[in-house]
Amino acid sequence: MIIILKPQASESDAQEILDKIASLGLKPLYMPGIERTVLGALGDERVLSQLHLDAYPMVDEIKPVLSPYKLVSRELQAHDSVVSIGGVKVGGGNFTVIAGPCSVENQDQLFGVAQMLTQHKIPLLRGGAFKPRTSPYSFQGLGVEGLKLLKAAKAKYNMPVVSEIIDPSDAQLMYDYVDCYQVGARNMQNFRLLEALGKQDKPVLLKRGMSATIEELLLAAEYIINAGNSNVILCERGIRTFETATRNTLDLSSVAYLKEKSHLPVLVDPSHGTGVKFLINPLSRAAVAVGADGIIVEAHLNPKEALSDGHQALTAEDFATLMADIKPFITAAGKSL
Amino acid sequence: MIIILKPQASESDAQEILDKIASLGLKPLYMPGIERTVLGALGDERVLSQLHLDAYPMVDEIKPVLSPYKLVSRELQAHDSVVSIGGVKVGGGNFTVIAGPCSVENQDQLFGVAQMLTQHKIPLLRGGAFKPRTSPYSFQGLGVEGLKLLKAAKAKYNMPVVSEIIDPSDAQLMYDYVDCYQVGARNMQNFRLLEALGKQDKPVLLKRGMSATIEELLLAAEYIINAGNSNVILCERGIRTFETATRNTLDLSSVAYLKEKSHLPVLVDPSHGTGVKFLINPLSRAAVAVGADGIIVEAHLNPKEALSDGHQALTAEDFATLMADIKPFITAAGKSL
Amino acid sequence: MIIILKPQASESDAQEILDKIASLGLKPLYMPGIERTVLGALGDERVLSQLHLDAYPMVDEIKPVLSPYKLVSRELQAHDSVVSIGGVKVGGGNFTVIAGPCSVENQDQLFGVAQMLTQHKIPLLRGGAFKPRTSPYSFQGLGVEGLKLLKAAKAKYNMPVVSEIIDPSDAQLMYDYVDCYQVGARNMQNFRLLEALGKQDKPVLLKRGMSATIEELLLAAEYIINAGNSNVILCERGIRTFETATRNTLDLSSVAYLKEKSHLPVLVDPSHGTGVKFLINPLSRAAVAVGADGIIVEAHLNPKEALSDGHQALTAEDFATLMADIKPFITAAGKSL
Amino acid sequence: MIIILKPQASESDAQEILDKIASLGLKPLYMPGIERTVLGALGDERVLSQLHLDAYPMVDEIKPVLSPYKLVSRELQAHDSVVSIGGVKVGGGNFTVIAGPCSVENQDQLFGVAQMLTQHKIPLLRGGAFKPRTSPYSFQGLGVEGLKLLKAAKAKYNMPVVSEIIDPSDAQLMYDYVDCYQVGARNMQNFRLLEALGKQDKPVLLKRGMSATIEELLLAAEYIINAGNSNVILCERGIRTFETATRNTLDLSSVAYLKEKSHLPVLVDPSHGTGVKFLINPLSRAAVAVGADGIIVEAHLNPKEALSDGHQALTAEDFATLMADIKPFITAAGKSL
Repeated sequence: MIIILKPQASESDAQEILDKIASLGLKPLYMPGIERTVLGALGDERVLSQLHLDAYPMVDEIKPVLSPYKLVSRELQAHDSVVSIGGVKVGGGNFTVIAGPCSVENQDQLFGVAQMLTQHKIPLLRGGAFKPRTSPYSFQGLGVEGLKLLKAAKAKYNMPVVSEIIDPSDAQLMYDYVDCYQVGARNMQNFRLLEALGKQDKPVLLKRGMSATIEELLLAAEYIINAGNSNVILCERGIRTFETATRNTLDLSSVAYLKEKSHLPVLVDPSHGTGVKFLINPLSRAAVAVGADGIIVEAHLNPKEALSDGHQALTAEDFATLMADIKPFITAAGKSL
Repeated sequence: MIIILKPQASESDAQEILDKIASLGLKPLYMPGIERTVLGALGDERVLSQLHLDAYPMVDEIKPVLSPYKLVSRELQAHDSVVSIGGVKVGGGNFTVIAGPCSVENQDQLFGVAQMLTQHKIPLLRGGAFKPRTSPYSFQGLGVEGLKLLKAAKAKYNMPVVSEIIDPSDAQLMYDYVDCYQVGARNMQNFRLLEALGKQDKPVLLKRGMSATIEELLLAAEYIINAGNSNVILCERGIRTFETATRNTLDLSSVAYLKEKSHLPVLVDPSHGTGVKFLINPLSRAAVAVGADGIIVEAHLNPKEALSDGHQALTAEDFATLMADIKPFITAAGKSL
Repeated sequence: MIIILKPQASESDAQEILDKIASLGLKPLYMPGIERTVLGALGDERVLSQLHLDAYPMVDEIKPVLSPYKLVSRELQAHDSVVSIGGVKVGGGNFTVIAGPCSVENQDQLFGVAQMLTQHKIPLLRGGAFKPRTSPYSFQGLGVEGLKLLKAAKAKYNMPVVSEIIDPSDAQLMYDYVDCYQVGARNMQNFRLLEALGKQDKPVLLKRGMSATIEELLLAAEYIINAGNSNVILCERGIRTFETATRNTLDLSSVAYLKEKSHLPVLVDPSHGTGVKFLINPLSRAAVAVGADGIIVEAHLNPKEALSDGHQALTAEDFATLMADIKPFITAAGKSL
Repeated sequence: MIIILKPQASESDAQEILDKIASLGLKPLYMPGIERTVLGALGDERVLSQLHLDAYPMVDEIKPVLSPYKLVSRELQAHDSVVSIGGVKVGGGNFTVIAGPCSVENQDQLFGVAQMLTQHKIPLLRGGAFKPRTSPYSFQGLGVEGLKLLKAAKAKYNMPVVSEIIDPSDAQLMYDYVDCYQVGARNMQNFRLLEALGKQDKPVLLKRGMSATIEELLLAAEYIINAGNSNVILCERGIRTFETATRNTLDLSSVAYLKEKSHLPVLVDPSHGTGVKFLINPLSRAAVAVGADGIIVEAHLNPKEALSDGHQALTAEDFATLMADIKPFITAAGKSL
């Protein structure tokens, strides 16, 4: 950790901080400059966060040297993690497509989509039972009824299911119905939820928050792993920027960045990431090319009747086009579906 | 609601949608243009959200005419709401200062701050017992022990207390200890939490999410009120932008905007809103001038020893300067402390 | 154009605006609603911008129906434009790589890079002679001397050259030296520069501004075409967001969006778009997959000695890896180098 | 300057960089850590920018210790600069209001506004003759004709005038007509323009770019001063964020930040900064309170007929209300109009 003092800091101001650093077992460094004095602390600087050195009036700025995450880091584990969702492997050389409706609405809708997906050999089914909606007047999901339908679909079509959790107290309940918990963008920093999932042994699909930095996403994953569950899959789903032509700005550089810095698998959600139907195919291709381990997309046999996000749901025909569209790129990437 | 069709839409595409609109009891409008056809729906367009008209392939864009919130709106209630926190009125002609440490750390720390605040006649004490922290390795708060200290401080100094809630299942527990629930930026769209607080009869201080639009903040408040609790206080605490000189960008235009569109009281948090100590005083003055109903700031008698956010905490001396600094502006605003 | 009136607007307020609309030869529409009155104007609503209807006190909001750009639009020209830079075609089925140093520094440096590029059959050379630098103390480019070196490199290696223009008064001077003018992000809305280039007959590579919306980029291109020069190539180079792990956030959805809405070729600049060397390859692959017509990258045989942006420049070895990396994806995209 | 090496960097990698640092006359520092090696360079690190140390493969990150600007810095000049616009002092204890139409349209319009402003003792008149417009189809200003009207208005009403310059080649022409050059947000990094104005002896009102950091604004001012003209006034006019309720997000914390770090006067433009008429008054009050040296606002006697930005222009009545509104806050701030 590097500590830059204000120009008017005295030698005794510096000494007070150096003593603090030494008292924690780190090696203090004193670097008096011409315009500024700079201090350093060598060792595991994470213990320094206890000190709140930035509260010292003579401290101008603190610059950490080490990244604040550990367990998710490729420095800790060099090889790629492969996470199993009900037996389906995510990561490694696989390119995994997870698809299904935004919300589970009824048996016909869900089974219809699942049937369509099996024709394309899609291994994993997604569907929301508990929906976080911006307005209290929007459809909030079927709840437990939706979970039951997901379990039935899984039994019938042999597709493990992914569904969103929005409350830590649902972790136990959902455990019986789903194969993978999804944490949505709005809950990426719902730390109680992350901790609750850290105590489960089923995988967690963790979506990046709308205004979360890549580092914050990794720290959210760190919460889950630190609490005991290392089966974490990251998901880029777009960040909020000034651009209004798209609902979010899908940040594909984050995918390559995450793959470099972390051993965790990384998916891309082009449906929410763009919010524009004609962008889903090109961005899915780009997700393959940038190195993602898969995509998660919304599909609905009759989007006009969908109870949520119908505008970005792919029909059976759209879905067939998407799959044909991405296949050559998956081959180019040296991966397999 | 205005529905703009794609250039290639036919008259029967338009008719299909017009029929849908009529089927919901709204008045459909057909406006064929030279380059585009535009449709309209007159009436309470909120029922149209059921239709997901944007899932129709020939629909290019949907433009709502009405705002999606109701209960928080000044169109519903023209006069300012005044919310009572343990008998202290927030809103109306008052300018309310809420202060205290970021985290409750121990009795000496909390009582020391409270004592200092009473000398300035500060009516409300804040302090965190459950802390949402970006890293799992940071101090997470004292939990129930912290709540007990807050209750003791309230008893001793006669200051109602405000403390953050991060899990819906804590609502009942906290009810016995605090006078006002604070919902932090990261939980603004934790809808289960909002609903849980909507069932309580104590006020809620709702902070704007880091990337939440003003409309989303109002809809989050709408969740609470819709669930039964109309005692909501809004709080601007800075949004996330590209600027790195400040931790967040304090959006004071949101305060004036909220006061125009909503009847709810609005506070400003200049501590988190800037993250820079020397900015707290000028932004507090600006908060007064822009029309805020108060500020919430962090204070700590010994910031160097603080377990969280020490760098932005005001000392006793800082706090005295702040109060002297804002007083002439409170007078200019025609308000009183 | 849709005009939403305030709730308190009277019928005569509406009539005043309807008369204005009619006076411009557009068809006015009156849609009285339950909570709000909505007005419409059918016809070429671009003439309405003269009216500034939003200055009417009873107007709450204006919602345009048509996009404000025309000449760049695919509605005007359905087929892809192909732009020739000194005989090298950009757009259509080609994937064009433009490479070279950030700044032209001296003959050895420039010729060395050009030589290396010819080994990879790269058709176009880039290099800055006039550099817009954030600080006045940074290297500002060689100026005319740099242009002369570019012309010499072109003659020797038979590579047409692209170089940045930062002042309209340089348009004539540069005409003799370069085959394509580059307009950098900071000058995307330097309208005098756009107009000056609109009067030339050499192509313009127009980079998206750091905080420019896609619509603003298209309107900037519209300036050039409207002034007489239809040889415009668009370039996504990253937008400014809150993320700090990358220098900018490369918005690949903009590429697909631009390809849908406009007939102009679109390039991607992964060097500036990420500012991080290890991200250049994956984002170049993604650029291919998303549908870009090419990339523009920085190369330098000895980045340690570069006078600008050395950290993101590709060495000879890096460049060979990049080309090997993107080739399978270019094939998958059905394009050819 | 602090240089953090990658974990795999060897001692000889470090030595190579240390030698480079020493070769420039700076004092090198070697800090081998447990996980990372950190290097330092003491002295005027600005010379290090020549080295592009970030191009060294073993360098992970560079953290500057000193700010990159000098001439604008309060470390160089502790007291406030006061800039004179045609004899009217901006800065110091004054709160200066600059007002006028967005565009000069004709004599009646301009003189009418000027007449109204003199009744409020407004000392400075603004008006655009060259207008940078997003669309080529919008009104682009009267050009020289507009400048002539401004000069006539100045003569008649004894109000020095401020007008925008958009091309360096206009600097000489405009010199004869205006008392202060305005550089708009889109041209904040038009470095040729900044240099051209640095060679003039009339003041420059420099607006912050839409996505410019505070540091970049200060560096833009540094360009002008470095070229010879120290009469620079900074202006906060809102930054581009995700929020759409306002046209921009007025960043008032930047004003307080600029006043702390720089000796230059700082104005606020609440008209463009919000783009919403009902926000102009509260944000003007907040500008006073946060410490701004003045505001620049748009006024038009008949906004319905304005050729640009009519929606945010203040009428005579609005303007009277604004002045009455801000006066008590100017007194509270200890300043005078």
